[in-house]
Amino acid sequence: MDTSGYGNDNYESLHNAASDDELVDIIAGATLDFSITDDVPPLDPEYSLGHDAYTNGKTGNTKLMDLLDEPVPGVGTYEDFNTIDWVREKSKDRDRHREITSKSKLSTPALLESISDAFSGWLLMLLIGLWSGALAGGIDILAHWLTDLKEGLCLSGFWYDHEHCCWGSNETTFQERDKCPEWQSWAELLGGSSVGASAYIVDYLMFIIWALLFAFLAVILVRAFAPYACGSGIPEIKTILSGFIIRGYLGKWTLIIKTVTLVLAVSSGLSLGKEGPLVHVACCCANILCHLFTKYRKNEAKRREKYAAAGVSYYFPLKTLWRSFFAALVAAFTLRSINPFGNSRLVLFYVEFHTPWHMVELVPFVLLGIFGGLWGAIFIRANIAWCRRRKNTCLGRYPVLEVLVVTGATALLSFPNSYTRMSGSELISELFNDCSLLDSSQLCGYITYSNTIPDRPAGPDVYTALWQLALALVFKMLITVVTFGMKVPSGLFIPSMAVGAIAGRLLGVGMEQLALNHHDSAIFKSWCSPGADCITPGLYAMVGAAACLGGVTRMTISLVVIMFELTGGLEYIVPLMAATMTSKWVADAFGREGIYEAHIRLNGYPFLEPKEEYGSKALAQDVMRPRRSDPPLAVLTQEGMSVGEVEAMVADTDYSGFPVVVCQESQRLVGFILRRDLVISLGACNARQRQEGVVSASLVFFTDHVPAQPTSGPPAVKLRGILDLSPFTVTDHTPMEITVDIFRKLGLRQSLVTHNGRLLGIITKKDVLKHMAQMANRDPDSILFN
Amino acid sequence: MDTSGYGNDNYESLHNAASDDELVDIIAGATLDFSITDDVPPLDPEYSLGHDAYTNGKTGNTKLMDLLDEPVPGVGTYEDFNTIDWVREKSKDRDRHREITSKSKLSTPALLESISDAFSGWLLMLLIGLWSGALAGGIDILAHWLTDLKEGLCLSGFWYDHEHCCWGSNETTFQERDKCPEWQSWAELLGGSSVGASAYIVDYLMFIIWALLFAFLAVILVRAFAPYACGSGIPEIKTILSGFIIRGYLGKWTLIIKTVTLVLAVSSGLSLGKEGPLVHVACCCANILCHLFTKYRKNEAKRREKYAAAGVSYYFPLKTLWRSFFAALVAAFTLRSINPFGNSRLVLFYVEFHTPWHMVELVPFVLLGIFGGLWGAIFIRANIAWCRRRKNTCLGRYPVLEVLVVTGATALLSFPNSYTRMSGSELISELFNDCSLLDSSQLCGYITYSNTIPDRPAGPDVYTALWQLALALVFKMLITVVTFGMKVPSGLFIPSMAVGAIAGRLLGVGMEQLALNHHDSAIFKSWCSPGADCITPGLYAMVGAAACLGGVTRMTISLVVIMFELTGGLEYIVPLMAATMTSKWVADAFGREGIYEAHIRLNGYPFLEPKEEYGSKALAQDVMRPRRSDPPLAVLTQEGMSVGEVEAMVADTDYSGFPVVVCQESQRLVGFILRRDLVISLGACNARQRQEGVVSASLVFFTDHVPAQPTSGPPAVKLRGILDLSPFTVTDHTPMEITVDIFRKLGLRQSLVTHNGRLLGIITKKDVLKHMAQMANRDPDSILFN
Repeated sequence: MDTSGYGNDNYESLHNAASDDELVDIIAGATLDFSITDDVPPLDPEYSLGHDAYTNGKTGNTKLMDLLDEPVPGVGTYEDFNTIDWVREKSKDRDRHREITSKSKLSTPALLESISDAFSGWLLMLLIGLWSGALAGGIDILAHWLTDLKEGLCLSGFWYDHEHCCWGSNETTFQERDKCPEWQSWAELLGGSSVGASAYIVDYLMFIIWALLFAFLAVILVRAFAPYACGSGIPEIKTILSGFIIRGYLGKWTLIIKTVTLVLAVSSGLSLGKEGPLVHVACCCANILCHLFTKYRKNEAKRREKYAAAGVSYYFPLKTLWRSFFAALVAAFTLRSINPFGNSRLVLFYVEFHTPWHMVELVPFVLLGIFGGLWGAIFIRANIAWCRRRKNTCLGRYPVLEVLVVTGATALLSFPNSYTRMSGSELISELFNDCSLLDSSQLCGYITYSNTIPDRPAGPDVYTALWQLALALVFKMLITVVTFGMKVPSGLFIPSMAVGAIAGRLLGVGMEQLALNHHDSAIFKSWCSPGADCITPGLYAMVGAAACLGGVTRMTISLVVIMFELTGGLEYIVPLMAATMTSKWVADAFGREGIYEAHIRLNGYPFLEPKEEYGSKALAQDVMRPRRSDPPLAVLTQEGMSVGEVEAMVADTDYSGFPVVVCQESQRLVGFILRRDLVISLGACNARQRQEGVVSASLVFFTDHVPAQPTSGPPAVKLRGILDLSPFTVTDHTPMEITVDIFRKLGLRQSLVTHNGRLLGIITKKDVLKHMAQMANRDPDSILFN
Repeated sequence: MDTSGYGNDNYESLHNAASDDELVDIIAGATLDFSITDDVPPLDPEYSLGHDAYTNGKTGNTKLMDLLDEPVPGVGTYEDFNTIDWVREKSKDRDRHREITSKSKLSTPALLESISDAFSGWLLMLLIGLWSGALAGGIDILAHWLTDLKEGLCLSGFWYDHEHCCWGSNETTFQERDKCPEWQSWAELLGGSSVGASAYIVDYLMFIIWALLFAFLAVILVRAFAPYACGSGIPEIKTILSGFIIRGYLGKWTLIIKTVTLVLAVSSGLSLGKEGPLVHVACCCANILCHLFTKYRKNEAKRREKYAAAGVSYYFPLKTLWRSFFAALVAAFTLRSINPFGNSRLVLFYVEFHTPWHMVELVPFVLLGIFGGLWGAIFIRANIAWCRRRKNTCLGRYPVLEVLVVTGATALLSFPNSYTRMSGSELISELFNDCSLLDSSQLCGYITYSNTIPDRPAGPDVYTALWQLALALVFKMLITVVTFGMKVPSGLFIPSMAVGAIAGRLLGVGMEQLALNHHDSAIFKSWCSPGADCITPGLYAMVGAAACLGGVTRMTISLVVIMFELTGGLEYIVPLMAATMTSKWVADAFGREGIYEAHIRLNGYPFLEPKEEYGSKALAQDVMRPRRSDPPLAVLTQEGMSVGEVEAMVADTDYSGFPVVVCQESQRLVGFILRRDLVISLGACNARQRQEGVVSASLVFFTDHVPAQPTSGPPAVKLRGILDLSPFTVTDHTPMEITVDIFRKLGLRQSLVTHNGRLLGIITKKDVLKHMAQMANRDPDSILFN
C-alpha cells in the first residue's frame, strides 16, 4: 500500500493506513464519528420547537433553532492528523467530574459511581501493568525460542529453547551448560554430523534461511495488516503525547501485529532491540483499556496521561532534576572528603557502600563519554540521511526487498563471529559480566597462576576475543544505521548499548592490562597494588553502554535511572553520570536533537520540543496570518450573516476555525468557532431543513439574545452553544518567545492576535513550528500537520 | 522585635525583619534599589536632549523626554512581599542571552564571555554543592559534639565527642565501645562517682541545664539577628520558588544564624530534625553564590531555578511519574510470576536481588500505612491549631519563655528513657538496624539457644525495650506538636520518621514473636518454617518511618526515592510503596494539605498549589475587580493625561499596576504599566524637572509617535519604554478553572479581563487565591500578599 515509510509523502500513506484501519480501530470509535447526518438522534421536531419557544419566550421568536440545548454528536471531537486543544479537553473533564460529584450527594448509586470514578485511574494502571507485563513476558519467551530455532532443535520437545532443553538433560555439566545430546544443531539433524566444514556450512545456511524467513514474515505482516506497527514508535508516541491525533496508531491491530512481528524481527538477528516497540505495545494496551472507562474514553487529554504513565514518563524534560542531582552528588563528595563520621559513609542511615572504582578511572570514563557522544551524533546524521534517501529515491519503493537484503547481509556477516551471532542482549550481558574463576567465556581466558591471586594477565583467548569484539564493533556501527527505520518493529536501546558496551569492554581490558604491567607508575601506584584486582572491565562496558545510549537518545538523567533499574547498582552513579554528561555535551555540540526528535522532524509532525532553545526577536505580528500581502482574515460576524454566507465561507477556505467578531468594522473579538464544529452543526441544520424551514437565507446568530424577527421570514439559527467564548489571545507586540512558551505550557492549538483590542490575525501551532524551523535554517514546509 | 512568628500579624514582623536586614542582605542588593533619586547616574542633560532631538527629529519636537533610551535604574525590579512576573523575567533572560550570543561573533573576549556564561550554571551548581555540603558536614560534627557535651567531657581533649574519645582509648572493648576511662560523665567530673542516685541526679540536672542553655542561645540569636532563621523554612522556600519575594529570607545573616542556631537547637535535645533547615541553608548558599554571576544576580526567575536545584527539587509534583512507577511495578510482578527465564530475575541484566519479605507481610505494612496517614492528619491539625493559638493569644508574646519551657519539659521527660534521651537520628538508626548475634542493644536481647539457629524468642530485655518504646512513642507524638513552629530552626523529617519507626518496630517485633509461636498456623506455614529468620523488625521500622513521613508531608514518590538514598536498598520498594500509598490515601481523606501547605496558608503567603483540585463553575467576570458595585477600573489613557493627573491617580489608589487604554470611551487595551515602574520613572522625571522644564501640566504619552506640539508649552513625557505591550488577557467568559491553570502554568502576576475587545477588569494572583479560599470555605482574607 505505502512504499515510503518515513518521509514527506507519508502524509498520504498515513491517511491510507488510517482508512484501512478505520473499521477495526478502537481510537477511532471515540474520535471519528464523522458521518454526521446518520448519527443525529431522531429528535422529535415538535418537542424541540416547543422547548425553544419556551426558553426564548421573551423574544417572542418561535422559529429559532437553538443548538445550545441539544448537543449535536460529533461536536467537540477531532479530525485525524490534527492537534487537540488541551485547555478544552481538561475543561471537559472538570465539567464531567463536577457533575459526578454533585450527583453523588443525591443517591447511593451515584455515590458509588463517584467512588469508582475516583479509583478508575488506579484500576486502569493496574490492568495496563498486568497486560503489558504479560505481553512483554510472552514476547521474551517466544523470541528466545525462535532465536534458538535458527541454530537447532530440541529433541525432547520442539517447544524448548536451547537453555531449557539442556536443563532437562542429565548429561549437562556445570562447565559446559550449553552442550547436551538433546539439543541438535541443524547440521546434526540434517547431515548427521556436528563437526567439519560441511556441517559448518549447513548450520550457516540454515541460520541465514531462518533469518530471512522471519524477516520476510515480519515485513509482510506489517505491510498487510498494520503499517503503523513498524519502527520503534517512540517518535509518534511523543507526538501523540504532545496532543496530536493519529487514528489507529494505538489500535487493536497495531497491537496484535506489532507484538507478533516484534518477536519475528528480534529473532531474525537484525541489529535491533525490543525496548522501544515495547513502549508502543504498552501504549496500545493503555489505549484499548482506556475505552473501558468513560472518564478516559471521551477525553483525549486524560487518555494521554495514561499513555504517558504506561511507558514513556522517562522522556519528560528533567533539566532541573538533573542539575540538582549533580549538586547533591558534589555535596555528598564534599561530605565524604570532610569525613565527619571517621568512616566513609555517605548516607544518613548507612546500609552498604563500596567503591569498586578510583578517581583516576574517571579519565577513561570521560573518554567513553566522548566516544558515546561522537557515535550518537554521527549515528543520527547517518541514519537520517539514509532515511531521507529511502524516502526520496526508488529505494523506498521496495521495503520487502530492503528488509531481506539487510537481513541477509546481517546473517551472512554475523554468523562467523560469535559476538555478533549471539543476540544483542546476550552480548551486553556477557560484556557487563565480570569474570569469575569458573567462567568459561573466551573473554575470561586469563592466565591464572593460582586460585587465590586475582592478578590476571591476558591469555591468547582474551586477545582473540578482543579482535572479534573490534570487528563486531565496526559491524554493529554500520549495520545499525541502515536497520533503524526499516519497515519492521525496531528499537534502538539494545544496538546502541551494544556498541557502547563493546567499546567500553575493549577500553576496560586495555586499562586492566596497563595497570597490571605498570603497577609502579605514578598513576597506579597509590591505589593499585600488585595482586589487587583494581579494574573491572565490566564496569567500563556498562559506562560505555550508558554513554552511547545517551549520545543517541539524549536522555541523561532518566538514562542513569534506567541503568540502575537494569543493573541495580547504586555505587556506580558517579561513573555513569560522568560518562553520560560528557556524552550529552559532546553530542549536543553537533546538534541538539536526539534520534527521536530527528525522526519527528523528518516526518513533519507538529511537535513542540519542550526544551528547544529559541532565540528570535520576532513578535507575534511577524508570525501571524494573514501576512501583510494576504487577503484579510476570514471572520464571521456575531449577527447578520446568513446560513448561505457562512456555508460559502466554509467552502471557500480551508482554515480549521473562524473568529467571530462584533461587526466587520470594529473587529472586536467575541469568540472562536472550529471549522469541524461549524460544519457538523450546519449539517445537522440541513438535515432538519425541510421540517424547520431553515433555508440559506436564514440568519445565523452567535449572540446571547436573538432579536425579535418578523414571523414571515425564515427562522434564525442560533449557534452560540458551539462558540468558544474564551479564545486565547495575545497582542501583536508579544515576543514570539513568550508566545512559544504559552503554546508549550498550555498546549494550545491556536491563538488569536489583537492590537489595541482589535482582532488582527491568528497564530496556529503549525505557524509557530514553521517559524521555529525558519529560525533554525530548516525548511518550514517540512511541518506537514496542524 | 517581633513576638509572633507564624501568624497573620507577621506581615508587620516580616517587614521589620526585612528593614533590619536591609543593609546586610545580599538579595536586597539586586531587588531593592529603592532610593531612586540618588541612584540616577549623572546624565548630561545636553547630550540627553540632543539625543532625543535626533531620534525624534521627524516630529520636530525638541522638548521630549524619552525614557525609552536610557533605562532608569530600578525599573523592572520588585518590591518586597510581591510576586514576580515569570514571563517578564524569562523574557529578560532571553534578551540577555541573545545579546551575548550576537556579540560573541564579533570578538574573542566576547566569545569567551559567551562560553563562560554557558558554563556558569554548572560552575554555580558545583560551588553550591561544595559549600552546602561543607556546611552540612560542619553542622553534623558540631551537633554531635554538643549533644555529647550534655552527658560529659573527654579528658584527652575536650573537642572529642563521645565516640571519637573512646576510639583513641586503648581500654575500649568491642562489646562496650561506648565505655572508656577518658570519657567522663558530669557526675564523675563534678562528684567523682558514676554510680548511685546522687550521680544520676547530677547527670540529670546537667542534662537539663545544658539543654536549656543551648535552647536559650538559639532563640536569643534568632530573635536578635535573623528572625527568618526560625522554623524549617520549607513553607517559605516553596512560596519563594513559586515566585514570591521575601527580602532577606535567603540572605547572609539568615545563613550564618540559621547554621549556628541549628546546631544549638539540635543539640538541645528538642524533638526536631535538621533536614528541612538544611534545605534552607542550601538555598541561602545558592542565593549568595548567585550574586557572583550576572546571569543570576539580575534575574529572579533564573535564581529560583538554582534554589530549586539546590535543595527542593523533590517537592515538585510527580503524579504521573508516581503512577507510572506503579504500572512498572505491576508489570515487573507479572513478569516475575510468568517467570520466562526459569529463575526469578526481574531485570534485564540481573545483578542481585533477594526478597527479605513475603506477600503476607503486606498486611502489616498496609496497617503501618494507615497508622502513618492517621498520625499525619492528626499531627497537621493539632500543630496548626497550636500555632494559631500561639498567634492569637498571649502565648505568642513570650517566645523565649516558650522555648525554655518546652526544652525543659523535653529534657525532664526524655532523660529517664534511653530511647528518648538519644538523638532522633540515633534512635531511627537503632530501630532500622537488624540484630546480629554480637549486638549489645537492649532491643536485641533475644534468648539465643545456639549460635547457629536464628530462631529468637524475646527475652526480658526485649519486653523492657518494648515498654520504653511505647512510652517514647506517646512522648514524641505529643512533644513534636508543640515543638514545630517555635522560634528556633526546626525540621520535621526526623521526628516524623522517629514516630513511624517506633510504631513499625513495635509491630515488627510483635509479628516476629507471632510467627515464632505460630509456625504451624495457616498464615505462616507456607513461608516461615521453624528455625528460619523470616521477619525483619528493622524493615517494619523503615516502612513505618516512610508511612509517617508521607502522612505528614504528602510527598509519596519523592519520599520513596529519599528512603532509597538513605538506606540504599532497592529491594524494599514494594513495602515502602504499599505503606506510603496507603498513608497518603488515609491522610488525604482528612484533608489534602501537607504540613508545609498548611503553614503556607496559615501565614497567608500567595502560593498557588500546583496539584490542588479546583471545581468551581465561576467565570473570570465573577472574580475580577472592579466588582459590580465598585467604582470603575483606574485606567490611564495612552495620550492626553498630564503628569499631574497621573501622579494624582497613583497617589489616590494602591493598585500595583494600571492598564493603559486608547481612550476612556472605547476602553480598548494598549498595555499595562506597573505602579513601581511608573513611580520610579515619574520620580526620575521630577529630579530633572528644573533643567528640562517638565511640570505637572506636561502631557504623558504612551504612544509610539508623539504628535508635534507647540514649542511654547511644557515638554511632553514619553513613557512607552516602561509599558508592557503584551499584557495577558482573558475574556470575561473564561472559566476560572482555565484561568487558574493559566496562572499556575505561566506564573502570572495579573491578567486583564476583556469583553468583546473592551477592557472590563483585572484579576490578580491574590484575587485568584482569595476566590479559591472562598470556594474551599476558608477565610479569603487570610491571603495577605499579592
